[in-house]
Amino acid sequence: MLNFDLALEAKEMYEENAGEITEINGVKAVVTKENDIVVTKVEILNQKGEEALGKPVGKYITIEFENFDLKELAMCIKKQILSLARQNSYLAVAGLGNERITPDAIGPVTVDNLIVTRHILEYNKGRFEDLFGNVSAIKTSVMSKTGAESSDIIKGFVKETDCDLLIAVDALKAKETKRLAKTIQITDTGICPGSGVGNHRKEISRNTLSIPVIAIGVPMVVDTKTIAYDFFDGNFSDIKENKTPMIVAPKEADELVVKLGKAVAYGINLAFHNIEFEDIAGYTD
Amino acid sequence: MLNFDLALEAKEMYEENAGEITEINGVKAVVTKENDIVVTKVEILNQKGEEALGKPVGKYITIEFENFDLKELAMCIKKQILSLARQNSYLAVAGLGNERITPDAIGPVTVDNLIVTRHILEYNKGRFEDLFGNVSAIKTSVMSKTGAESSDIIKGFVKETDCDLLIAVDALKAKETKRLAKTIQITDTGICPGSGVGNHRKEISRNTLSIPVIAIGVPMVVDTKTIAYDFFDGNFSDIKENKTPMIVAPKEADELVVKLGKAVAYGINLAFHNIEFEDIAGYTD
Amino acid sequence: MLNFDLALEAKEMYEENAGEITEINGVKAVVTKENDIVVTKVEILNQKGEEALGKPVGKYITIEFENFDLKELAMCIKKQILSLARQNSYLAVAGLGNERITPDAIGPVTVDNLIVTRHILEYNKGRFEDLFGNVSAIKTSVMSKTGAESSDIIKGFVKETDCDLLIAVDALKAKETKRLAKTIQITDTGICPGSGVGNHRKEISRNTLSIPVIAIGVPMVVDTKTIAYDFFDGNFSDIKENKTPMIVAPKEADELVVKLGKAVAYGINLAFHNIEFEDIAGYTD
Amino acid sequence: MLNFDLALEAKEMYEENAGEITEINGVKAVVTKENDIVVTKVEILNQKGEEALGKPVGKYITIEFENFDLKELAMCIKKQILSLARQNSYLAVAGLGNERITPDAIGPVTVDNLIVTRHILEYNKGRFEDLFGNVSAIKTSVMSKTGAESSDIIKGFVKETDCDLLIAVDALKAKETKRLAKTIQITDTGICPGSGVGNHRKEISRNTLSIPVIAIGVPMVVDTKTIAYDFFDGNFSDIKENKTPMIVAPKEADELVVKLGKAVAYGINLAFHNIEFEDIAGYTD
Repeated sequence: MLNFDLALEAKEMYEENAGEITEINGVKAVVTKENDIVVTKVEILNQKGEEALGKPVGKYITIEFENFDLKELAMCIKKQILSLARQNSYLAVAGLGNERITPDAIGPVTVDNLIVTRHILEYNKGRFEDLFGNVSAIKTSVMSKTGAESSDIIKGFVKETDCDLLIAVDALKAKETKRLAKTIQITDTGICPGSGVGNHRKEISRNTLSIPVIAIGVPMVVDTKTIAYDFFDGNFSDIKENKTPMIVAPKEADELVVKLGKAVAYGINLAFHNIEFEDIAGYTD
Repeated sequence: MLNFDLALEAKEMYEENAGEITEINGVKAVVTKENDIVVTKVEILNQKGEEALGKPVGKYITIEFENFDLKELAMCIKKQILSLARQNSYLAVAGLGNERITPDAIGPVTVDNLIVTRHILEYNKGRFEDLFGNVSAIKTSVMSKTGAESSDIIKGFVKETDCDLLIAVDALKAKETKRLAKTIQITDTGICPGSGVGNHRKEISRNTLSIPVIAIGVPMVVDTKTIAYDFFDGNFSDIKENKTPMIVAPKEADELVVKLGKAVAYGINLAFHNIEFEDIAGYTD
Repeated sequence: MLNFDLALEAKEMYEENAGEITEINGVKAVVTKENDIVVTKVEILNQKGEEALGKPVGKYITIEFENFDLKELAMCIKKQILSLARQNSYLAVAGLGNERITPDAIGPVTVDNLIVTRHILEYNKGRFEDLFGNVSAIKTSVMSKTGAESSDIIKGFVKETDCDLLIAVDALKAKETKRLAKTIQITDTGICPGSGVGNHRKEISRNTLSIPVIAIGVPMVVDTKTIAYDFFDGNFSDIKENKTPMIVAPKEADELVVKLGKAVAYGINLAFHNIEFEDIAGYTD
Repeated sequence: MLNFDLALEAKEMYEENAGEITEINGVKAVVTKENDIVVTKVEILNQKGEEALGKPVGKYITIEFENFDLKELAMCIKKQILSLARQNSYLAVAGLGNERITPDAIGPVTVDNLIVTRHILEYNKGRFEDLFGNVSAIKTSVMSKTGAESSDIIKGFVKETDCDLLIAVDALKAKETKRLAKTIQITDTGICPGSGVGNHRKEISRNTLSIPVIAIGVPMVVDTKTIAYDFFDGNFSDIKENKTPMIVAPKEADELVVKLGKAVAYGINLAFHNIEFEDIAGYTD
């Protein structure tokens, strides 16, 4: 996934200004707060904005929280998703990452908590359209298990199921330890899978898939370099690279990954199905 | 998967004849035995054979055993696969079935024990071709989790990875309780997923995928009707249908599914990679 | 677990009588209904009752439902548990059964959804007593994985943790296919583990553990013989035994086991902790 | 588990000496090498040795390797275990750690690959004694799931099963990143569970259990502090503590934990059962 931190820096830049919505140099930023959840939207409007922030034109939403109430967070995710997508889409959700590496399992856990309906609607024409949107889902697993890039698996899935919107969910690498498992990032500019655990793969975006793509990333790991910085308040210059690729994750990653995966899945469920938060448990297990 | 039992009946028909290889009415059959493993090959050669056995033209291999040695069974599976496929294929393996329903997990367990190499060969051109064939793999999960037919997921995967051979592995419904977990069926006529647990889905075959398809089926469940027959030696005529869809599987299904999934995976590993049985453990976990 | 069906037969016997509460021959029975959940309590009061129903003195509660609302069922389970146990107990919950055999996993799934607090209270004396009861938990797994009887593992656990109440949760074998996954049985007479899948092990009861024992059983499997009966409406006499031990479970066992395991766990959480249904999700994952 | 690094320092101290076996100041050390596996045995003989190395009297074995052959490593582990224990023991194996946190799952994975026999021998007196030793096993899970200390669960299990030797297997914290997943430590002085992920719990040792205890530890995680040191070659003095508890593990932890857990389990299987390496797969899945 793209590095959002610049977008957050932009936020800080704009926060110094008086008004809530600001627009300078091709970048628009808004910060809102509800129920202890802070939502920052940075929109890069044109080339000028791209140059200022070093990222492509698009919308970048950052949801930040300390502790969260599942319903409040899910409602917030729903709202932000719907600010980027048409509600009556034919949605495919791709859960990226390695189900067997605890902090990397956020994508698969999200898929496990979705209300998947495409097959139901197809086999029962005209019966459940009031209640359910059209949602399908796939876990892409990782290249060492499939031999294929997540982007290729998704491309095939999207084509064969004729969906017109993709939401890709993946673990991210955080730039700061304190932001781990306390941020959800949503963008309409796509995702570069594996970046959470240090691999770089083919982009998953509107360019490569020919349909709109929303990427939802949850920072679940940090870099070893970030850990080293933490010890010195980033107060040093020459830092050598660590050779062994490592996963650095919160100690209670097993619980966090389930809670955050549920929040993301419930947000998607609420955004595309015509149901209340209280109904979700009845449709999922 | 197609019902092999007629093919086995054919076998019984031909066994009464003197020679080992027989050919009558457009059907050719061979029975061989090695290390307590019995292999029956029935080939339907033409329309006459199709009419005689009620199944499409193609090759039907049945491997039968009571207890098995992992190496012997894997070697036998290797040999039978290679009697149906080119060794230097670009192979995709699809593991069908529900990973969370014990006896239905034979496909996913097979995938877990494969040596997947497509990505390694792609990123290291010219380095490992002597050692490895080109193998990729996907678990299709089930329609209630994905919203999509296994056949559609496979079609997408096959197209995007440019493979030229598919092996689909699935649990089957056995016609007789005593054959449960003691038979492996291999055919080049394709598979109809979900038939092991009573659903009928789109065919996965050369017709639908435009590449050769080998289906490997392992009978892991039986019908409740079969159970009722067992109690009466099939000695009754009017049997009413059972309304509640049930899974009927061997009590030690958890261990059997791992052992048989490994045997199938190792057979595939041996067939397409240039390695010995003893090396496999070093490449898988 | 003990066979409750006689207790239900008793219920039927008593239902023919006029009043809601009846008491004949040392057996007392009450049937109540709330929110489409039917609760039958049969109490065997003395030796006369033991002889009449062929079961030991004790209380036998059967909760029956078709579809259920998680909250309503959990509230019902809470109420029934508290009719048999002191709320401020030092509770140990034992989840029996094989986590890897889908329908046998009801015990482990229950444990996964408990709010376990013993360690929190111990390390924070005087801080959380208003909020939480003292709950610990263990999954006993099965003899083929541990080499030990569940009863021995529980006995050791109970002694070392000084708890004064045990709740043992296990899958049961149903006597009728239609009652599968639609009944929860609760008794204060103990449990005989493994009976759900055809093994008989050492009893887990007040006799063997020296503390009160509540057994919660959920019928998740049936006998192959039951399946045969279903086909003939039980309308035959000589039925031969099936030799291969089989698991017969509902086809959607994977979802049912999660839903029912949650209902049981939430019932226990509500019975022993001072929290509302809506709070549970915040404490578990 | 105790910190072995001092023992390794001792090794380095002694390596400077000429002979292979050296003994100074109450410490005896031997280094051997076979098949690229280096085994260091440090024995602390008396109080003088305790003072010199800051660790209790006992034997400390460190097995080091870069890549390993499963059979060679298992044979080495077998040999080292038998240098500390009687072969015809009634053995209980405890797998410590959180099965759902990838690098912490080494104990549970070991248990999954054991040949457990206690129940078989008990129900078949006199039949399998030539083939199998008496082995039982338990996964202790973690305190947040059970509410109980691993040591208490083990104490209860050991008492009720009457075993006379305990092997406890747990993930360790390594002192150096380069030693991660490349070392196995075996001692007869016991274990302090949770030290791999930063918790300190009640000791599991002969003192607390009244039977001999062998602890097998596999360094699967490192400290964030260690990561910081790696970046500076340990070339700094004032290092502040990191507040967020983190897990730092090798990126391919999912595969490593399976391979190393198997190596440990197979070593135990070979040490206590009368079987060959080649037979193990037939008894486990």
